[in-house]
Amino acid sequence: MGLLEETKEKIYPQDTSAREQARKRLDQLAIPHWALGDLMDLAIDLAGIYRSITPVMNTKAIVTMAGDHGVTCEGISKFPSEVTPQMVVNFTTGGAGINALARQAGADVFVVDMGVNSDLSDLARSGKILDKKVGPGTNNIARGPAMSHGLARRAIESGIEVSNDLSRQYDIFGTGDMGIGNTTPSSAIAAVITGKDVGALTGRGTGLDDQQLTHKVKVIEKAIAINNPDARNGIDVLAKIGGFEIGGIAGLILGAAAQKKPVVVDGFISTAGALIASVIEPFVRDYLIFSHKSMEPGHKAMHIHLGCTRPLLDLNMRLGEGTGGALAMNLVEAAVAILTEVATFEEAAVANADK
Amino acid sequence: MGLLEETKEKIYPQDTSAREQARKRLDQLAIPHWALGDLMDLAIDLAGIYRSITPVMNTKAIVTMAGDHGVTCEGISKFPSEVTPQMVVNFTTGGAGINALARQAGADVFVVDMGVNSDLSDLARSGKILDKKVGPGTNNIARGPAMSHGLARRAIESGIEVSNDLSRQYDIFGTGDMGIGNTTPSSAIAAVITGKDVGALTGRGTGLDDQQLTHKVKVIEKAIAINNPDARNGIDVLAKIGGFEIGGIAGLILGAAAQKKPVVVDGFISTAGALIASVIEPFVRDYLIFSHKSMEPGHKAMHIHLGCTRPLLDLNMRLGEGTGGALAMNLVEAAVAILTEVATFEEAAVANADK
Repeated sequence: MGLLEETKEKIYPQDTSAREQARKRLDQLAIPHWALGDLMDLAIDLAGIYRSITPVMNTKAIVTMAGDHGVTCEGISKFPSEVTPQMVVNFTTGGAGINALARQAGADVFVVDMGVNSDLSDLARSGKILDKKVGPGTNNIARGPAMSHGLARRAIESGIEVSNDLSRQYDIFGTGDMGIGNTTPSSAIAAVITGKDVGALTGRGTGLDDQQLTHKVKVIEKAIAINNPDARNGIDVLAKIGGFEIGGIAGLILGAAAQKKPVVVDGFISTAGALIASVIEPFVRDYLIFSHKSMEPGHKAMHIHLGCTRPLLDLNMRLGEGTGGALAMNLVEAAVAILTEVATFEEAAVANADK
Repeated sequence: MGLLEETKEKIYPQDTSAREQARKRLDQLAIPHWALGDLMDLAIDLAGIYRSITPVMNTKAIVTMAGDHGVTCEGISKFPSEVTPQMVVNFTTGGAGINALARQAGADVFVVDMGVNSDLSDLARSGKILDKKVGPGTNNIARGPAMSHGLARRAIESGIEVSNDLSRQYDIFGTGDMGIGNTTPSSAIAAVITGKDVGALTGRGTGLDDQQLTHKVKVIEKAIAINNPDARNGIDVLAKIGGFEIGGIAGLILGAAAQKKPVVVDGFISTAGALIASVIEPFVRDYLIFSHKSMEPGHKAMHIHLGCTRPLLDLNMRLGEGTGGALAMNLVEAAVAILTEVATFEEAAVANADK
């Protein structure tokens, strides 16, 4: 039995008893009933995930998975592929958006080379990034599969390894991505798994104009038609129309769920990884916290498919890297604080409402 | 010239030059253009408020103003007035919602007795609360004015004093409130200042049923009809249909704006205070950051009247105390980090998009 199968076997739903205990306590807090709204719902989920009404969430890891995409040769991105390794370097010097927002949230950032088309071994040797390189970027999905089934499995298992390693030290994970061109495979994954039209799910990525967007939709439709991925087989979808960093994100999610730790899902690309993970093991949904609504139009359909009607934030963001997840970690921490630090009517000796 | 007039004279619009410099830098960040969305707009505001593109926001104060309301005798709240002083005690022992969320956000909480109908002098003497008591609760606005013009001015000037004192030590303010019954005067203030119908602006507060809500609307309509407040005169509106803590919030906002510090406005009651402040001095709007959309139906109309189409958060909250503001302070801090910590394309040596 491989690491993927072992991991799947360890993924259980949330603990219903801890959820009920949490609900009971939250019902009695010295506030008007449920007046902290969505954060109280989130607190119940956290109790269910951690199997405790006094969860501890001190250490936070944001894992930013990087990979390149052969489909960029079709002209589906405003930025050249060289930006992927340049941004990896930027992550390691602390100047990227995710560095700033992770610092604000008190989270550590781990950058993983899942398949960047550049030699990053110096950064790996010096410990600035994790080397899980599956290959030097995917093949062009408009011409054939992104990768073999074997490499798809290796990408996912690499993500699992990262979460297994970090689970010793971290209480919560945030997903992140870097990969020029990766809204294209993400839209393709969204279309195949949700069953919705490519046109409705595809957006401007880093800033395409109308004509470029029309072209991108055609490229994605072609990729799906040529590869014919099986929507019920996560490995097949990843292999045919995915990306190495998307596989890494799916693996990180599966690994975190097996470790009974919550995963804050960042934006559009991370949610594509979550879709792959949820096809492989539907119970992972119980461990997902959806951070924000991206400006990519397909994000909403992906959220709904995963059972989320409304993510925590909606700030017109479309950066990726893990930035939405970093912002939302503050809200997750707040939900833990509501569950563990707010007094009940009885504890605070405050009179309750007239019934 | 009194403190209020002196304060008004110190309130200027945001600095347009700092705003432009911030916009220029944000345009060049090594991210797809404006990909951090609303937080980048907020970063421009913060540059304009602080007159700097390297603002420092290390210390955060949340000021929770407490007061009682004579109108509670009309049966407009589910909770008895005794809860106001009980919650003040809860604030001082650290067990309330605002304590938990302020700790998460790294903010200090200051509780101010603006007009609680209880002797809190022991708490004031021991330094656990600030004593600015204007009176032992307001009069019943359904029968006459809440307070005299003199007391209304004193409530506002007390709020100014609090922000003047705290400005020496704090870089940003959050507003907060505690006062059983205070959605009633807040809805009345919203109706008078926005000119909209009381019915559309009035909500269930701490949990009224349909019949109780209908009664509350009638009480508010009566309060406005009897008192006939002048919508162009903030002191008159506060005196006739306001509350001591609402006046304190208005003063805190005016004082912060005079000190050129941003104010994160909490929920429904705080926004009523902001409406009063904006009638007294319209330029205060340049210093307001709207934290969240409350479940009270009138909140949206108040936000729009103050020029805000969408507050930062929408989490189905309706607690007050400053809790929404505390959560949003993380986002304000993130906006500062985006402006001051994220590298430009040039600084990071990252290739920009094809034009």
